[in-house]
Amino acid sequence: MAGMTELLSAARGDTPCDLVLKNGRIINTFTLEILESDVGIKDGVIAGTGEYEGIVEMDLGGAYVSPGFIESHFHIESTMLRPPELARLVVPRGTTCIVADPHEIANVAGIAGIEFFLSDSEKIPMDLYLTAPSCVPTTRFETAGARVNARDIKKLYRHRRVIGLGEVMNFPSVVKGASDTMKKIEASRGRPIDGHAPMLSGKNLCAYIAAGPRSDHECTSWQEALEKARLGMWIMVREGAEPGNMRKLVSIINEKNCGRFMLTSDDKPPDKLFNEGHMDFLLREAVRMGLESALSVRLVTLNPSQYFGFSSTGAVAPGYQADLVVFNDLKTFEVKKVFKSGQLVAENGSLTAETSHAIPRPSILDTVHLPKLNEDDLYIEFKKEKPRARVMEIIRGTILTGNRIEDVPVDKNGRFLFDPDNDLASVFVLERHTGSGRIGKGLVRGFGLKKGALASSLSHDSHNIVCVSSDSLSAFTAISCLASCGGGLCAAVGDRCAGLVELGICGLIHEKSYESLLESLGNLTKAVNDTGCEQSHPFFYLSFISLPVVPELKITDMGLFDVNAFGLVELEVGEGEFKV
Amino acid sequence: MAGMTELLSAARGDTPCDLVLKNGRIINTFTLEILESDVGIKDGVIAGTGEYEGIVEMDLGGAYVSPGFIESHFHIESTMLRPPELARLVVPRGTTCIVADPHEIANVAGIAGIEFFLSDSEKIPMDLYLTAPSCVPTTRFETAGARVNARDIKKLYRHRRVIGLGEVMNFPSVVKGASDTMKKIEASRGRPIDGHAPMLSGKNLCAYIAAGPRSDHECTSWQEALEKARLGMWIMVREGAEPGNMRKLVSIINEKNCGRFMLTSDDKPPDKLFNEGHMDFLLREAVRMGLESALSVRLVTLNPSQYFGFSSTGAVAPGYQADLVVFNDLKTFEVKKVFKSGQLVAENGSLTAETSHAIPRPSILDTVHLPKLNEDDLYIEFKKEKPRARVMEIIRGTILTGNRIEDVPVDKNGRFLFDPDNDLASVFVLERHTGSGRIGKGLVRGFGLKKGALASSLSHDSHNIVCVSSDSLSAFTAISCLASCGGGLCAAVGDRCAGLVELGICGLIHEKSYESLLESLGNLTKAVNDTGCEQSHPFFYLSFISLPVVPELKITDMGLFDVNAFGLVELEVGEGEFKV
Repeated sequence: MAGMTELLSAARGDTPCDLVLKNGRIINTFTLEILESDVGIKDGVIAGTGEYEGIVEMDLGGAYVSPGFIESHFHIESTMLRPPELARLVVPRGTTCIVADPHEIANVAGIAGIEFFLSDSEKIPMDLYLTAPSCVPTTRFETAGARVNARDIKKLYRHRRVIGLGEVMNFPSVVKGASDTMKKIEASRGRPIDGHAPMLSGKNLCAYIAAGPRSDHECTSWQEALEKARLGMWIMVREGAEPGNMRKLVSIINEKNCGRFMLTSDDKPPDKLFNEGHMDFLLREAVRMGLESALSVRLVTLNPSQYFGFSSTGAVAPGYQADLVVFNDLKTFEVKKVFKSGQLVAENGSLTAETSHAIPRPSILDTVHLPKLNEDDLYIEFKKEKPRARVMEIIRGTILTGNRIEDVPVDKNGRFLFDPDNDLASVFVLERHTGSGRIGKGLVRGFGLKKGALASSLSHDSHNIVCVSSDSLSAFTAISCLASCGGGLCAAVGDRCAGLVELGICGLIHEKSYESLLESLGNLTKAVNDTGCEQSHPFFYLSFISLPVVPELKITDMGLFDVNAFGLVELEVGEGEFKV
Repeated sequence: MAGMTELLSAARGDTPCDLVLKNGRIINTFTLEILESDVGIKDGVIAGTGEYEGIVEMDLGGAYVSPGFIESHFHIESTMLRPPELARLVVPRGTTCIVADPHEIANVAGIAGIEFFLSDSEKIPMDLYLTAPSCVPTTRFETAGARVNARDIKKLYRHRRVIGLGEVMNFPSVVKGASDTMKKIEASRGRPIDGHAPMLSGKNLCAYIAAGPRSDHECTSWQEALEKARLGMWIMVREGAEPGNMRKLVSIINEKNCGRFMLTSDDKPPDKLFNEGHMDFLLREAVRMGLESALSVRLVTLNPSQYFGFSSTGAVAPGYQADLVVFNDLKTFEVKKVFKSGQLVAENGSLTAETSHAIPRPSILDTVHLPKLNEDDLYIEFKKEKPRARVMEIIRGTILTGNRIEDVPVDKNGRFLFDPDNDLASVFVLERHTGSGRIGKGLVRGFGLKKGALASSLSHDSHNIVCVSSDSLSAFTAISCLASCGGGLCAAVGDRCAGLVELGICGLIHEKSYESLLESLGNLTKAVNDTGCEQSHPFFYLSFISLPVVPELKITDMGLFDVNAFGLVELEVGEGEFKV
């Protein structure tokens, strides 16, 4: 009730507003109209639209005014940025609210990781809400740093900014009604429950929806999206990291059904965020692909607000938060000014508001736990003289991998011989949470490595250390380098660390500014070029070869994983016992 | 979680559904499409759509299937029916959910009245939700039977079926930010808050919306509705008791904004409910006036569900309550079958489900408290020899009254003389809650009474006893008759009670069946004809001449009330002191 008297007085016009945006063209997300009007703001809230007077008046000269953009499905970890740095990057692009699923950091540090995001986002000019991660760990065939069970989820809901259940990726388990997963859903009744059900259709899709999840961001065709929308799912059209589905889905969005669609980024690397933009990019793309402008704006404002049950965002209307974005045209959506709760927080692409960072707890800065490592641990040995083995193949533009069986070259001791002509390299996944020393070993094609090694502590979803290498010394160097700095991305050649991006927070998040991160990433790219790597996004592909829920052959710290068979398999193929 | 395993098994098709509706055309409220599909139902919930098998299968032969109709704004008291009888009447017309504001019964019996509605609706095949009444009593210029303050409202919210704040009619007080009203709104934060703001516009409307209310059912023009919709109000298009606004508002409803509109009845007398129907009537009217059929259905299903934050009604989709309505065409919406939570509860216009009535507490059956009354109390005396007085004039088709000053005939003792040629009759409002003996007296034109008297304990909003009469004996008879039966509607001529509708519950609600009520009402109409009354709905107009918030001249137990001046005024006009 604090401030209500003053708000109503300003709304009535009895006292001046704090700030009035004059001469704007407001995008009305309720009626999909564009209407000329002032916006009167008092104590961070919209007092009214119409004609208002303010202590401060700002002439917008006919610019468009949109409600602040709401990102409905996001993983902060994909940006490798702390929340304040993320805000510095995206608030100037018009984002005033993000709902993020912290399942990466939760896989490393559990509740402590989630709490870090919450505390680090207390003083940023953007609303950051989290969903409680539903799938930590992702499978039992890998070693994560933490588990999040239904009881943890209930506890998380005590925090005002943890608002629902994060994408329930284990859809087979939901369809079956498996008890563990259903307990998490039951703990979330009455809250939004995000879905994730690629290719699920027909009766199994009905079962999935009946169980609880009411959104999906994994549609791969318009037919899939239409089926899901008809069955009551809110469809999140995704365009972040590749592959996006906007091009495939826009054709089915129309005025009748547009209340059920949103635009979202899901994962988006920091360089793309910097170069392309965030929700402004999605709007630009949507309009370019033929969606009407005001309708597109609704997909990133009122719709996510309604989906999450927010009562006062997503519209420019009395009583709503004065989260506003100003831009000059409805094609480029180039953002000129951003207001958060009535404060001008960004102008012409730069954040003008102050942000404040939390001090991370020591535990989340110390998450790479490897026992003493020897170069000798990083060979792959085969039993047979002419061994045949399973090989993962990167499929460009996807996070899928092929599963081939082929002859592999070995030396006289049976050790795998790097084969650049055949683009065949070693890959290792080192368990880094408990210090068990467990190493999964495999072979991969698709990196085009000529020499050296690439290693990363960012590897979905358990975020063990994954390393692709030409030789054991380079692998040893890259991994040791990550172990000593608390995690990150590294390229090494021989005993030389050629490039390093430090991700000291949980091995996922850069401690410093986004400029520092972008610079390190640039340097790393140069170093990667030194290794002869032909893959333009090697760390992206590296981070997904350990995700044991995306077909076909993956690798975890426990070994090779056949996703279709949903079980561990041996590297060497053949009769009898053998040892990797 | 109970039953989830079975629900998912049925959804997957592993076990048969309890019931499958085969061969239906489903109105998809998410996409506004009509799609051929089965509906599989398990334990009262929709397991899936598509092709399903069931223990029971019902061939719909191509009939349409809609989600159950939701009435978003209703006063049960206007039907004079108990909830189970209301259900008997409206469920066969397709209504499976009503959100009602019990402010009439609350004005008489306070929380006890609201609790009666809750207990009396525990076993009916319809969801009855209530809003907490926000304006009891309506003004301080009348005597109600109870007060409902912010603390009471908070207590009411402990009941699962009290879901939000009822129409905040005292809009001037909201606009001003008056503390009493704002406390009720604050107690309701996070819940739907219904508005009621006829003709409010511009800055004052902004203030009203900023304060909290997010719906309105009082628009009198499309311009008013459009302004309110643009400012974020959900617009309830109303067609119940006269005057409705559907004809005026349908023209602005389109595919872009249709997510913000609902159809509602507000007040609807039992004979109209019986003869016209309920939500089926609204659909019929909407389509007749040019709205598209599937869009119209959305206005009585998904939209109210979203407005109230219901998670599982308003659509035919997995996980939703199996509340379904079956009809053969999209013009007449003649309802053939109604399912509530998967049970067939009505067929071909008749309820097939059982209902159960609660036993009313003695206190709510004993609410007419008059001190011993004499015929002599029911005269109007003037001071002057040739008095001039204020006269209320009924304005047909509205609940407004005119305010005239004219000469009035008196006998030699200064007592008003009934003047049928001039259509001038006495009107009395007898305070009936506390036994104070207070009687407001006035003159009214518009009933066309030739003899006798009409009395009612149903008189907005305080529900004192209001009586229009030609002579004091008839008035005495009519009022005494109501006093002895606990309230109702009565027509008397001389010492004879010519017609009586007993409304024993709080003087508002008929204790028996709807058939009994309709029969009594029919008999009453005949009796009214005996009095020569020319007004076709005399008890409707009678019940509104005591409502001191609708212009222009009204009467309460405290006397005549000038609504524009918002104060009591004297009946006799002139210099000096006088006594009524």
